[in-house]
Amino acid sequence: MGGNQADPAAPDRFADDPAFAVHEGGKLSVRPTRSIESIADLALTYTPGVARVSSAIAAEPALARRFTWAPRVVAVVSDGTAVLGLGDIGPAAALPVMEGKACLFSEFAGLSAVPVVLSTTDVDEIVEAVAAIAPSFGGINLEDISAPRCFEIEERLRERLNIPVMHDDQHGTAIVVLAALRNAAKVVGRELADLRVVVSGAGAAGVACTKILLEAGVGDIAVADSKGVLHVGRDDLTPVKQWLVDSTNEAGHAGTMADALRGADVYLGLSGGSVPEAVISGMAPNGIVFSLANPIPEVDPDMAARYAAVVATGRSDLPNQINNVLAFPGVFRGAIDAGAASITEEMKLAAATAIADVVGDDLRPDYVVPSPLDRRVATAVAEAVAACAREEGVTV
Amino acid sequence: MGGNQADPAAPDRFADDPAFAVHEGGKLSVRPTRSIESIADLALTYTPGVARVSSAIAAEPALARRFTWAPRVVAVVSDGTAVLGLGDIGPAAALPVMEGKACLFSEFAGLSAVPVVLSTTDVDEIVEAVAAIAPSFGGINLEDISAPRCFEIEERLRERLNIPVMHDDQHGTAIVVLAALRNAAKVVGRELADLRVVVSGAGAAGVACTKILLEAGVGDIAVADSKGVLHVGRDDLTPVKQWLVDSTNEAGHAGTMADALRGADVYLGLSGGSVPEAVISGMAPNGIVFSLANPIPEVDPDMAARYAAVVATGRSDLPNQINNVLAFPGVFRGAIDAGAASITEEMKLAAATAIADVVGDDLRPDYVVPSPLDRRVATAVAEAVAACAREEGVTV
Repeated sequence: MGGNQADPAAPDRFADDPAFAVHEGGKLSVRPTRSIESIADLALTYTPGVARVSSAIAAEPALARRFTWAPRVVAVVSDGTAVLGLGDIGPAAALPVMEGKACLFSEFAGLSAVPVVLSTTDVDEIVEAVAAIAPSFGGINLEDISAPRCFEIEERLRERLNIPVMHDDQHGTAIVVLAALRNAAKVVGRELADLRVVVSGAGAAGVACTKILLEAGVGDIAVADSKGVLHVGRDDLTPVKQWLVDSTNEAGHAGTMADALRGADVYLGLSGGSVPEAVISGMAPNGIVFSLANPIPEVDPDMAARYAAVVATGRSDLPNQINNVLAFPGVFRGAIDAGAASITEEMKLAAATAIADVVGDDLRPDYVVPSPLDRRVATAVAEAVAACAREEGVTV
Repeated sequence: MGGNQADPAAPDRFADDPAFAVHEGGKLSVRPTRSIESIADLALTYTPGVARVSSAIAAEPALARRFTWAPRVVAVVSDGTAVLGLGDIGPAAALPVMEGKACLFSEFAGLSAVPVVLSTTDVDEIVEAVAAIAPSFGGINLEDISAPRCFEIEERLRERLNIPVMHDDQHGTAIVVLAALRNAAKVVGRELADLRVVVSGAGAAGVACTKILLEAGVGDIAVADSKGVLHVGRDDLTPVKQWLVDSTNEAGHAGTMADALRGADVYLGLSGGSVPEAVISGMAPNGIVFSLANPIPEVDPDMAARYAAVVATGRSDLPNQINNVLAFPGVFRGAIDAGAASITEEMKLAAATAIADVVGDDLRPDYVVPSPLDRRVATAVAEAVAACAREEGVTV
């Protein structure tokens, strides 16, 4: 890489952080599944042998599923507008995150995944570009695209393509949150239907978590954005926030998030910022606090533990880590194994139950979700999702 | 892959052809360069460690070259309109060819390559889609796109992107043909400038071969399409054929390809069809026949050998195989190593000379180009192309 090599005599300013060593040269490679050692190998892998395979697929397109890699490749697509907590950092800076995601698809689900970062943030152009390249892939994982654009992009691609499309910041998070809440409810001896939940954050994750919790039967949910609880009196609502108003807050909370949290059973933090002790102490006894802002949870976990029965965060150095890696590898693997044309609401609910069930009899307040490294999870999720897809008859 | 599994009791109709066994499940996989075994690995490869790398790239975009995989990944892009000799078979059927190409990038140049097949054949849509995904890649290999669309697509993408873009059916072929002709001229003791060449075929390969032969100093070239030699009297010419008329055929041939071949030194067949013995026997003594149609050369090689001093084909089971794999892996590797923003004419000429030079003192009539498996070639080409790029100062 001579054109850009640093002065070899200069000290490397990245030497002290092992994260940079792990990223040197990138984190992925594409390799042939069989090596090419002879003219005979070349004549089978490439011309003239490949022409017989291409001809067979041209005559019978379903054979592409068997004789090409595409059905088992997920595109991890981002425009770099909402990357981790870093915001709109653009495609090049988003790449390490997408490469990391691709590593996890490989490690946990045995799927190939290709980062696709985009030079445009225009919704129409993104939809057109992804639709144009879709025949190359078996699934589309949308990632780190800012709200509310992410909703429209996902919806339009789902309508247009007959392969699984999922915006992971929405649905991956929602699946794992539901899995964790199922088990947390068991820990405190409650039913989902009886819980009063406050969701802090009405972005991609907040919307999807609210939706899946409603589908799972949670009785009472209030959603707050930075201006307070979403309610019928608000006149500053995007279409998706209007949908939230229509679907939640039957109790009619109209004040701040802190007001709504008084006497609530569950706090679900998806927003960043900081929630003071006086607010958490006002929740109902035996409460549940999921504080998922990274790297600094909205609620100090030690403080939360003095009031709540179950505390979960997004941090890898604390128990009960709510991490999307519990969901997306198995969800895509299951959908792909079943030949599903889309990822349905039932498939997401099945995934959440499968994740919760891996915990099984080991359930404890500090173990409501499996470890992100637990290799049983992706298999269990894939099986549950594939079974659901076959029952629903959405297989191709 | 339950949704599409064949009846296990049925005999497999593909069992007799080893090409299908080689393609079972596809020919590529994407894998992490480092495995993820611990929470610490996860925290460096993915969150929170990856955020530090993304932040660094956001602040200093040139760091993407060091800390992401993109600069060393080539997209192999096709709309499936001109696949091998099969024609317009569509994206799914084109995939095995693109996967094969990606295998060769890996095997011969150590580059990752990702097949990108497109659901559109519209020039504008292709240009927009490739431009949109370009930040994901370090180079774009256009492949098997029909003429004349391929010329406009390549030209517009070259203008728009600051990474190497090359339509291999044009320039890969041209580079190897020039390499072979350099050595064939040596075998017969002639200078390129003194040769009279007839090119049969005015598609992607014919145009690019003619262009590079002119640049290399070949004195007299006549180009024929299916209607005969291109000349000033023709009124049915596309813009690129008009360019050929303006640039070639100083002798003013106006008849058939066979007419022009009378007394010519070189036949370059890029068209298919069949050339009879009476035509080949009318070429000048000590002639050169490159008959590259696959799998059946335009000129029977045994017959050609009775008249010509050097015979080359595209076939792997005959000597002097003119195969693009001698060019594209090294060309992209060299351009990428040097950080070149494009692949220039000088870089292609340098690649051709490097390929010819690998033959060296072993030059014989039946050994004017190296074997496609000769591992020295890609290294030599990459070094020559990178050196040329650095001299030209096109490095990023």
